[in-house]
Amino acid sequence: MADEKLTTQAENFSEWYNQVVLRAEMADYSPVRGCMVVRPYGWALWENIQQSLDRRFKATGHVNAAFPMFIPMSFLEKEKEHVEGFSPELAIVTHGGGQKLEEPLVVRPTSETIIGYMYSQWIKSYRDLPILINQWANVVRWEMRTRLFLRTLEFYWQEGHTAHATEAEAREETRRMMDQYTNFAIEDAAVPVIPGRKSETEKFAGAVQSISMEAMMGDTKALQAGTSHFLGQNFAKAFDIKFLDQNNVLQYAWTTSWGFSTRFIGAIIMTHGDDHGLVLPPKLAPIQVVIVPIARNDADRSTVMPVVERVASELGANFRIKVDDRSEVTPGFKFNDWELRGVPLRLEIGPKDIEKGVVTAARRDKPGREGKSTLALDQLTAQVAELLTEIHASMYDKAEAFRDAHIYDPKNYDELKEVVQNGWAFSWWCGSKECEARIKEETKATTRCIPFNQPDGEGRCIYCGQPASEKVYFARAY
Amino acid sequence: MADEKLTTQAENFSEWYNQVVLRAEMADYSPVRGCMVVRPYGWALWENIQQSLDRRFKATGHVNAAFPMFIPMSFLEKEKEHVEGFSPELAIVTHGGGQKLEEPLVVRPTSETIIGYMYSQWIKSYRDLPILINQWANVVRWEMRTRLFLRTLEFYWQEGHTAHATEAEAREETRRMMDQYTNFAIEDAAVPVIPGRKSETEKFAGAVQSISMEAMMGDTKALQAGTSHFLGQNFAKAFDIKFLDQNNVLQYAWTTSWGFSTRFIGAIIMTHGDDHGLVLPPKLAPIQVVIVPIARNDADRSTVMPVVERVASELGANFRIKVDDRSEVTPGFKFNDWELRGVPLRLEIGPKDIEKGVVTAARRDKPGREGKSTLALDQLTAQVAELLTEIHASMYDKAEAFRDAHIYDPKNYDELKEVVQNGWAFSWWCGSKECEARIKEETKATTRCIPFNQPDGEGRCIYCGQPASEKVYFARAY
Ligand SMILES: [Zn+2]
Ligand SMILES: [Zn+2]
Repeated sequence: MADEKLTTQAENFSEWYNQVVLRAEMADYSPVRGCMVVRPYGWALWENIQQSLDRRFKATGHVNAAFPMFIPMSFLEKEKEHVEGFSPELAIVTHGGGQKLEEPLVVRPTSETIIGYMYSQWIKSYRDLPILINQWANVVRWEMRTRLFLRTLEFYWQEGHTAHATEAEAREETRRMMDQYTNFAIEDAAVPVIPGRKSETEKFAGAVQSISMEAMMGDTKALQAGTSHFLGQNFAKAFDIKFLDQNNVLQYAWTTSWGFSTRFIGAIIMTHGDDHGLVLPPKLAPIQVVIVPIARNDADRSTVMPVVERVASELGANFRIKVDDRSEVTPGFKFNDWELRGVPLRLEIGPKDIEKGVVTAARRDKPGREGKSTLALDQLTAQVAELLTEIHASMYDKAEAFRDAHIYDPKNYDELKEVVQNGWAFSWWCGSKECEARIKEETKATTRCIPFNQPDGEGRCIYCGQPASEKVYFARAY
Repeated sequence: MADEKLTTQAENFSEWYNQVVLRAEMADYSPVRGCMVVRPYGWALWENIQQSLDRRFKATGHVNAAFPMFIPMSFLEKEKEHVEGFSPELAIVTHGGGQKLEEPLVVRPTSETIIGYMYSQWIKSYRDLPILINQWANVVRWEMRTRLFLRTLEFYWQEGHTAHATEAEAREETRRMMDQYTNFAIEDAAVPVIPGRKSETEKFAGAVQSISMEAMMGDTKALQAGTSHFLGQNFAKAFDIKFLDQNNVLQYAWTTSWGFSTRFIGAIIMTHGDDHGLVLPPKLAPIQVVIVPIARNDADRSTVMPVVERVASELGANFRIKVDDRSEVTPGFKFNDWELRGVPLRLEIGPKDIEKGVVTAARRDKPGREGKSTLALDQLTAQVAELLTEIHASMYDKAEAFRDAHIYDPKNYDELKEVVQNGWAFSWWCGSKECEARIKEETKATTRCIPFNQPDGEGRCIYCGQPASEKVYFARAY
């Protein structure tokens, strides 16, 4: 896997991405157009992401459940904007058990409708609220142009669906879960993200308001890395989710939904990766530390292997480790191989290291001499923990610096057209759909989000010059 | 939920089962015929089962991955017996993205075919073997008669798929994974199981040999609680899974598959449940200990609640606990409610208990006075741990004793016909499909498994009287 040179990011970012995903054995193409196989190394990363998010969901009072993946076509039709948004992308089951079905079933593209129906059965009184349920599931959206992780027909995600007694509580939940996502992205994935409101055009089909977090990839394109939707009473009205309030008055509930998918694996790859391959954030990496014994002959091996085993057993108690004791390949081959796979820290243990009571450490995030250091064998656990923390911080800082260096404040529309070729524009926008559509048409840049964090004052729309009260990010996006 | 009496097991076991599943909020019917909603309490149990099995899979060298849920129809057709077995149960996607598909896609009923295809791409040399992959997934089998957990159109499971260089290794793997299942069933679910070979008639479509573990439910019917299949080279030949061996000769690989599903939740319910509701095994129960404060008035509450909080925080560090401090219902209502939900241990804390420095414990597996004891507040963690261990052992013993009391060794076929009305027959069988078919037709009892554990000697077939070298379990089954 490590025997051929990767295409560099500068040569062709998109080709670099495909090669890294395939060669690092994160995922593979499947015989079904547009569907991917997530290979064990990629799935182990997803499992770590799942645990990390699931912990946050549970800490904020949510529970998991599972709803059917088949949804009657008529359910989707109950919410007008929802069905308009999703119907071009549906996979339809027409036959089951050898019979044509009376009503075709849709393979869920998202589950607001079927969960809304169940909530209408379960909710009777204000005492039943809030309902805070999440599910980890596969969903299907029939995309024409697909990319591994970034856009596939079937993908894996979690979708939270909550119902509340008041609008304020539902709005708070929408924001709370976005806070969980951004906290995860920053703290665990070292991916800097900007949370904010979606425009009316870009919001979820059926939502009153959508919020998202946006990340900048290594080619400066934006990637929407998680969304949270305030659905108002739209689905409650479509599915008759009603409750008796404390005054015994029948009210419609207020609902939210929020989702985070395997797409984020693409974000991790394209935020941190370099020309040597993946660079995985230490808190999520399937293998945090790889140990490579350095032994030229049997005598070396007999000195080195007992130390390697001791180190492995010590570190294995606290970190996800791997000992690469393959005899058929050279240490150099192994170094390249684990660099390609993005293991945050490599420890080399040879006879000379042992003599000095040390191991040689090499950081993945700083290739070459800069990332090398010597760790004392008798303080290994503490030093490795420190290094991993440092790697996380340094990966985050690097990604943030890169992003900030590519966010521009163009003076006029001509400048915007230029900067969005290799960065994001952060510009005043009057809020009109027309300006948004024109900019998209003329530059391929869409509004990414209206960040919560806004500058003071007012400005003039970068396109039409009308007064504008908010700034928005314009960028080409995945 | 606890306000109406349950139908008793003696009155109508099947009605008892449905009521328990619904009222304990384990699962619910969905608007899609035959599909279930697994509610949070049921899903939490499944998550504990998943963790418990996943740990065993990883300890035996397996890794997780994810393969597409859509399979081209032509793939199934490549293995003749496989397609014959599954084609009556398929759900078919004929349209995607608004277009009729050129080739219909099957929603996976199981994944031997698509995984076999991928293995043929990945495996080149003996160095690539064994491949030991598992996936946690949803699958669909279009059943006509469905029951929550026991038989649903869509269900959740894990399916392991492995490829090996030799027949011996693949056969070993088939057995190893059955050992993992039985170990799980006995050690974690307190469900006694009997592992053994399936007959030719009952084996998996496409397997050379299937093994299963069989459990006896509270109505004496059998439930197949996990299967492991030696697939020989059948799928390797159908999908061209070949490797160069150490002598550089091209060989077909040997494959296995093994699966365990949400059906097992039904087994837990029907093995341990009683007329008060669920009885959940302590190691898997979503809530292991429920703490009920006993307070008649505000004065009581101010004495009791600080102790409840201290106990909750102490026990919460080691057990999955829940404090039921609802003020709108009585302690008696709470007792019934948590009994219905099968929480293994209830702790009651009232002012008198506190005076004496104790709490009152009530075991779910022994209702009434027999299951009550007094625990010292200052040794609570140790005593609760001990009690949970005891509950597990006692649940297992009770289930095993019940099973053994309902396994018969009928002297002749007439006796067999009688005993399988309320138990299993363990009888010599000549191995002929005809005897098996006749017995099934005449008694509704099928061969469950030919247990690994066989008596010495030989006998005569219980049906035809011909010489027989093995004994088999005959039983009516879920
Ligand atoms: Zn404008
Ligand atoms: Zn016979």
